[in-house]
Amino acid sequence: MGESRVAVIGGGVIGLSCAWRLADEGADVTLIDPEPASGASWVAGGMLAPVTEAWPGEERLLELGSSSLRRWPEFASRLSAAAGLDAGLRMDGTLVAAVDSADRAELAALAGHLRRLGREVTALPARELRRLEPSIGPNVRAGLSVPGDLSVDNRALLVALRAAGDRAKFVTAQARAARPGSVELADGSSVGADVVVVAAGAWSAALHPGLAGRLRPVKGEIVRLRARASALPPPARTVRALVSGRPVYLVPRGDDRLVLGATQYEAGFDTDVTVAGVRDLLLDAERVLPGIAEYAIEEVSAGLRPVTPDNLPVVGELEPGVLAATGHGRNGLLLAPITAEAVVALVRGEPSPMPNGELDERWRNQ
Amino acid sequence: MGESRVAVIGGGVIGLSCAWRLADEGADVTLIDPEPASGASWVAGGMLAPVTEAWPGEERLLELGSSSLRRWPEFASRLSAAAGLDAGLRMDGTLVAAVDSADRAELAALAGHLRRLGREVTALPARELRRLEPSIGPNVRAGLSVPGDLSVDNRALLVALRAAGDRAKFVTAQARAARPGSVELADGSSVGADVVVVAAGAWSAALHPGLAGRLRPVKGEIVRLRARASALPPPARTVRALVSGRPVYLVPRGDDRLVLGATQYEAGFDTDVTVAGVRDLLLDAERVLPGIAEYAIEEVSAGLRPVTPDNLPVVGELEPGVLAATGHGRNGLLLAPITAEAVVALVRGEPSPMPNGELDERWRNQ
Repeated sequence: MGESRVAVIGGGVIGLSCAWRLADEGADVTLIDPEPASGASWVAGGMLAPVTEAWPGEERLLELGSSSLRRWPEFASRLSAAAGLDAGLRMDGTLVAAVDSADRAELAALAGHLRRLGREVTALPARELRRLEPSIGPNVRAGLSVPGDLSVDNRALLVALRAAGDRAKFVTAQARAARPGSVELADGSSVGADVVVVAAGAWSAALHPGLAGRLRPVKGEIVRLRARASALPPPARTVRALVSGRPVYLVPRGDDRLVLGATQYEAGFDTDVTVAGVRDLLLDAERVLPGIAEYAIEEVSAGLRPVTPDNLPVVGELEPGVLAATGHGRNGLLLAPITAEAVVALVRGEPSPMPNGELDERWRNQ
Repeated sequence: MGESRVAVIGGGVIGLSCAWRLADEGADVTLIDPEPASGASWVAGGMLAPVTEAWPGEERLLELGSSSLRRWPEFASRLSAAAGLDAGLRMDGTLVAAVDSADRAELAALAGHLRRLGREVTALPARELRRLEPSIGPNVRAGLSVPGDLSVDNRALLVALRAAGDRAKFVTAQARAARPGSVELADGSSVGADVVVVAAGAWSAALHPGLAGRLRPVKGEIVRLRARASALPPPARTVRALVSGRPVYLVPRGDDRLVLGATQYEAGFDTDVTVAGVRDLLLDAERVLPGIAEYAIEEVSAGLRPVTPDNLPVVGELEPGVLAATGHGRNGLLLAPITAEAVVALVRGEPSPMPNGELDERWRNQ
C-alpha cells in the first residue's frame, strides 16, 4: 500500500488494531479519537469465545469468530514483540455452568447444537466442574468445558496496541463525517486521506449515510473485582453461566482480578451503571462463585456495544475510499485480528480474508 | 487565645472545624493531613440524627448529639458567610421505616424509648409514610417521623470548611506523633506548636499513647446514587430503615442525588468495598425505595469510623499541651459544632461546653 494515507476513525480495539497493522504495512496512518481506548473495548470482559457465544441461527458468526480466534495467538505474539508489552492473551479455556433446571435444559440444547456443528464441547457433572474450579459453588448443577474459548486482558491489550501503533499519528478530536478523501472533524477542520476507515463502534452510524440506522448501541455493565486475602482465589478459567435464564460471565485477569459481566440494555447512548444491573450481576455471580461475596469491588462501569440486526460486523467498502470496520457487537476483541487483516486487504484492493465474503455485499445490497 | 500556635492533626470534619474556629478566634493554626477531606468525613452519609441514632444505654450520646444539633443552624450560617459557599445543611427531617414484623417490633421499642426520654417522634402507618414520601414502597409496613433529625451534604460542608479555614496553614504530610510543643511528621521533621490537637479519626490512636487501644476503625461502605430521568425522584427527607434487622439509610442531597449507607465491619484499616456489602445495601434499599432500581450508581466507597468502647467521643486534654478531638464514630458530622467549640474553650483554658463535662476525665482516669 506504499505511501497511502489512511485515516482511521475510532481508537477502540478495532481502530487500534487496524492502525497498527496498516502502519506496519507501510501506510501513513492517522487515528482520530477524542479519547482512545476509553469506550466499549476498555469496559469489555475480554472473552474470546465464539463457541460459548454461539446461538442457533448465528452459524456465520460462529465461523467468523472461530477464524479470528485461530489468528489470535499469532496476533498476540506479533503485538507483544512490536509493543514490548504483554498482549494479555490467556489460554486457560472456558467452563459454562447452569444453576436451575431450566438453565440446565438450555445448556444441553447449546451442547447439542455445538456437537452437530462439530465443535469440541464436553458435558461435565457438577462435581467435575468443582474439581476443575473449586470456587464453583453448590448451586451449580451441570456444565460444559470448552477449552478452546479463551480470553484476553482487554486493558493490557489496548495499552499494547497503542504502543505498537506508535508510528500512526494520533489526533485527539471528535470526527463528524467520513467522506472520500477526508474526515471532517467536529471543529469544522478536516483530515485528508486516500482511504478513510470508520471504526467508531456505536458512534459509527452518525459518520456515514451508508451506516445510518444499521447500528444500535447496546449497553453492557461490568463489575471489576479483586480477591481479598481472606477469600478463595478466582478461577483459572473463564466461568460463564446461565442463572435463572440470565447470562453472566466471570473472566479472570491474573493478579487476583476478575471481571464480572455483562448486562444488555437497549437504551440509546446511555452509559449509566444502574442499581438493577449491578444487583443482578452480583446476585447471579454469587450463585455460581459464592466466594466472591468477600471480593473487593474495584470498579463498576458501562460501555456501548455497536450491534447490527444480524449480529455480524460490517467490514467492507461503504463507497470508494471509505471503509467500514464496525458493528462487532459483543465480539470486538475476538474479531480484531481478522478485521485488521481484512482492512489491510481492502486498502490494498485485495480480497478480504473474511470467510463470509458477501459481508460487505450484504450491506451494499440492503 | 491571642497568638497561640495550634497544630491540628487531621483534615476531616473535626479537624477542619477546629481549624476554622481556632483561626477565626485569632490562633495561628497549622493543619496537618496528607490528604485533607478524603477519609470518613468525605465518604459519610451526612445524617445529623441523634434521635434516630439513639439506642437504649446511649443516653449521654443522645444528649451530646442533641446539644450539637441545636448548634448546627448557626454553625452552618456562620460557615456559609465565612466561606461564601453553601454549607450543605438540609432541614427536611427524617423518616424511619420498618419492613418485616421483627423490624416493626424493634421500631416500636425505639419509639417507646424516645418518648420516655421526651423526644419528639410520631408513629406513622405505612399509607401516611407514602403520602409524605411517595417513593416508599409497598414492603414498608410502619414508620416514624422525626422532623428534628436533619442532614448535611458532607462534601459541600468539607469544601466550605476548607474555604473558611483558609487563614490556617495546610501541611500536606503524615503525622507520626503528637507531643507537647510539637507534631512529629513521618519524614522525621516536626511542626512546633503551643497546643497540639489530635483529630485524626481512626488513625488517632497511633499518635499519642493516651489514645492507644481506645479507638478502633469500623468500616462503612456507601453507594452514591443519581435518579435518572426515567425514575421516581428521591425522597425529600432522609429515609432510614430496618430491613430484616439490618439498618440502612438513604440521604437525599438535592440535585437528584441520594447517598445509600452504611455497612459496619470491624476489619482493621481496610477500605475495600465488598461484593457482600454493596449487595446488601442495594437489596435492602430497594425493599424500602423500589424505584432506585433504575438509579445510576455514581460511586461506591468506604471509610473508617473512629469508634470508642462506649461510642462517646474523646474531646479533652491528653496531657498539658496535647488535646484529643476524636473517637466520634458514626457522629463526626453531627458533633463537629460542639467539638470545635469545646476545643476552642480548652485552648483558651476555659470550661468545655460539652454537656458531659466528665468526658475527658473518663479518659484520664481509665
